[in-house]
Amino acid sequence: MGKKIKRAISPTREENYAEWYQQVIKAADMAETSAVRGCMVIKPWGYSLWENIQRGLDKMFKDTGHKNAYFPLFIPLSYMEKEAEHVEGFAKECAVVTHHRLESDGEGGLKPAGPLQEPLVIRPTSETIIGATFSKWVSSYRDLPLLINQWANVVRWEMRTRLFLRTTEFLWQEGHTVHATSEEAVEETLQMLEVYREFVEEHMAIPVVTGKKTDSERFPGAVDTYCIEAMMQDKKALQGGTSHFLGQNFAKASEIKFQSEKGQEEYGWTTSWGVSTRLIGALIMTHADDDGLIAPPRIAPLQIVIVPVTPKEETKEDILQFCRDIEASLKATFYHGQALRVEVDQRDIRGGPKTWEWVKKGVPLRIEVGPREFEEGKVFIGRRDRESKDRYGESKEDFLNNVTSTLDDIQKNLFERACQFQKENTKKIDSKEEFYEFFTPKNQKKPEVHGGFALCHWSGESEVEEQVKKDLNVTIRCIPLDKTEEEGKCVISGKPSRQRVVFAKSY
Amino acid sequence: MGKKIKRAISPTREENYAEWYQQVIKAADMAETSAVRGCMVIKPWGYSLWENIQRGLDKMFKDTGHKNAYFPLFIPLSYMEKEAEHVEGFAKECAVVTHHRLESDGEGGLKPAGPLQEPLVIRPTSETIIGATFSKWVSSYRDLPLLINQWANVVRWEMRTRLFLRTTEFLWQEGHTVHATSEEAVEETLQMLEVYREFVEEHMAIPVVTGKKTDSERFPGAVDTYCIEAMMQDKKALQGGTSHFLGQNFAKASEIKFQSEKGQEEYGWTTSWGVSTRLIGALIMTHADDDGLIAPPRIAPLQIVIVPVTPKEETKEDILQFCRDIEASLKATFYHGQALRVEVDQRDIRGGPKTWEWVKKGVPLRIEVGPREFEEGKVFIGRRDRESKDRYGESKEDFLNNVTSTLDDIQKNLFERACQFQKENTKKIDSKEEFYEFFTPKNQKKPEVHGGFALCHWSGESEVEEQVKKDLNVTIRCIPLDKTEEEGKCVISGKPSRQRVVFAKSY
Repeated sequence: MGKKIKRAISPTREENYAEWYQQVIKAADMAETSAVRGCMVIKPWGYSLWENIQRGLDKMFKDTGHKNAYFPLFIPLSYMEKEAEHVEGFAKECAVVTHHRLESDGEGGLKPAGPLQEPLVIRPTSETIIGATFSKWVSSYRDLPLLINQWANVVRWEMRTRLFLRTTEFLWQEGHTVHATSEEAVEETLQMLEVYREFVEEHMAIPVVTGKKTDSERFPGAVDTYCIEAMMQDKKALQGGTSHFLGQNFAKASEIKFQSEKGQEEYGWTTSWGVSTRLIGALIMTHADDDGLIAPPRIAPLQIVIVPVTPKEETKEDILQFCRDIEASLKATFYHGQALRVEVDQRDIRGGPKTWEWVKKGVPLRIEVGPREFEEGKVFIGRRDRESKDRYGESKEDFLNNVTSTLDDIQKNLFERACQFQKENTKKIDSKEEFYEFFTPKNQKKPEVHGGFALCHWSGESEVEEQVKKDLNVTIRCIPLDKTEEEGKCVISGKPSRQRVVFAKSY
Repeated sequence: MGKKIKRAISPTREENYAEWYQQVIKAADMAETSAVRGCMVIKPWGYSLWENIQRGLDKMFKDTGHKNAYFPLFIPLSYMEKEAEHVEGFAKECAVVTHHRLESDGEGGLKPAGPLQEPLVIRPTSETIIGATFSKWVSSYRDLPLLINQWANVVRWEMRTRLFLRTTEFLWQEGHTVHATSEEAVEETLQMLEVYREFVEEHMAIPVVTGKKTDSERFPGAVDTYCIEAMMQDKKALQGGTSHFLGQNFAKASEIKFQSEKGQEEYGWTTSWGVSTRLIGALIMTHADDDGLIAPPRIAPLQIVIVPVTPKEETKEDILQFCRDIEASLKATFYHGQALRVEVDQRDIRGGPKTWEWVKKGVPLRIEVGPREFEEGKVFIGRRDRESKDRYGESKEDFLNNVTSTLDDIQKNLFERACQFQKENTKKIDSKEEFYEFFTPKNQKKPEVHGGFALCHWSGESEVEEQVKKDLNVTIRCIPLDKTEEEGKCVISGKPSRQRVVFAKSY
């Protein structure tokens, strides 16, 4: 007791949060930087999380009537110019293709050649190129709603990048839909926000606040932007996904018109919505601890790893067979509609480093089987949501019978833990002094302490947003959807307000 | 009899093969050209085929020990220069990013700004960027074999493009592996070729010849390139996939080195292999007919469509319920490990156009249920591999009991039909005169008739390849793997030869 436990990740969250994040990614072997500025290599463990995100979301998109398609990587410069706010929002971060071949530079090297008549922008998002296509697909109300999704890579030239959170190239999905009425488009926007909330909370065990962005944080060209906001362990907010009601802005820019039931020509109402590999960053910063990643069972690349411990040659084959039998039973077990993901780790390395590797990778359940367990028909179980010393034995039969409920219990435990953290660090604040103190405590020792979510009245003035951004680097993350009307006064300006909004520092 | 049947696709294959191909894609709503030169939009029906290709191959890759990862879209120019043959092969078709933002051009428009210090090439293939990463991942023989696959988009600036067959941007997978020995790398190369053969033949019902490319057709930088070659209905060859043994060429270019078991530093042996959305073009040109696409059941976006025919309001709901019951039974039926893909088409459009839409889209089984079928507990069945008038009735129970074997029968039938076509148009040719006649028949009426596969002796001289390419636009598609040694004389030069190779015109 009182003795400091040695942790697998150094520095710890408390010592240096930003560096801890990088070290978790390294320890779990999830991603690394590449030779290309700001672009990452997503390693198999990290990519497998993305595959599971894709599989889960893709099913939910299809269940709500959406179909996948694929549109060009390139956007002609002239298309970008069609929506004024949109191009202004993205102009500073566009990678531009200007040539279509290479030729000798006369010094043994190569130089770009074959200049393009019109430069091509690599999609930072696809509203304009998809809009141009939709204008051909839509001609009558019978063609609506048009419900399309694309899984793709996009490029936004970022000056300061961090693995998963902000990279020049990232992977994402972008839904694009067209509707006959404003009401239907708003309904779609909110439906997809709800899909995101459900997926992120139930599959990834990340609690979120759903809400609407203020005008200053809207997507360039949107009428309304809705978002899910999660709280990371450093108490900063992370925007996990957005759903935009685009009104008729892009329909007008791209000439998406249809003949209504009454025979009139009208512009369509469009939406777009997306989540990206950034969600993996959110997963890490919600669940990982000072021993590495903790992967919620529903999304984990591996849900169970079986480690045979075979000190003696004579019992080795028996123990391996015992493990393989367990593996076979687990692989035949369904968990939330899919066969369990399980592996017997037979590699010839020592037990300690082997176990720690799986701890760092965040596998929810680790099973060890040594000579004693084999003799007694038992398994020794380590749950990643508990302390590593906190292991327990169970008969093989009980383990197999309980395994899906054990996994569900881990999933639930991770979610509740994160909910508790969010709750503890969310505070209603009604005075300006307390607001400033919340985000810059006088007794602050570490720069990584960021207050949390401040629920405050806001008058609706953009001046207030500008001021707290300048003073504290705090922004309004969202105007919560589940708000209850409440009279009050803006925490900064003192002007009348009818709602509390979420203020926080953010990624 | 004798009366010409009206077909859904105009022109027919015989009338104008190239235009027929475009019209099938249009009729089946699979893809279209975009505003960006050479880039296509893959529409939901076409993309669904790609999703099914991905799902099938991805499982086979994982079953053979490969893991997915993701590498940057961009390749620094200096990386491209590392392998001399490689850069020469791709220099003429590289899209080059030279700027990272847009700014006002002073005339109300935008121009590229923020020039990059080093231009970035958009990956035409990823050997160099992945090689640079692998050099960090590999340090000991214990790290080998390294078995990685990537699903990605690539860009090759093509001057003449055709939907699916040759587009500037396309979707593909590229496997990249590193091995400790030459033997293991060759074994991997051939294993993946066999994975492609099995997938393309068994899932897509496309018969292929497996073989090795001649030096002139090798992948730039490879030691040996292996391929699968299929015969299209115009008798031209289409390369469906390639698997490259790269020797130590790229390992040396990228410094992929490892400490061997004996403690010596050695270069790794690498492979790469890929298939692309081009396979969809192969699928169309193997199976489609003058009524549109025919999708083999294992790969079909929808395997069964149920069309209720409801002429009278009073029986409408009963018939719809009967259809929905069948749909539910089918969705609970597994076919090659997956739930059947089925849909009830309740759209309020006339029966004729509705049926023809599904014919053109190539759905393997169409089920119609009208008042009479409902009364008798029957269904009326149309198989897409048979003439459209060739339909039959079956009791609902029999249909449901037989459905998976019916689908297997369609799959088998399509494959056998394609095998038969390939066989009929493959000919052993031993004289130069016959060879020239085979590829330019004197009685030729249409430019689309291309002879077929000529199995001929070849001396190994590249001059022969140059000559037949110049004279006939014919190339050696491959040196078949299953060749039996046979003494002979080169069909063109008369020099001694020990093997027959496949000559053909090609896509």
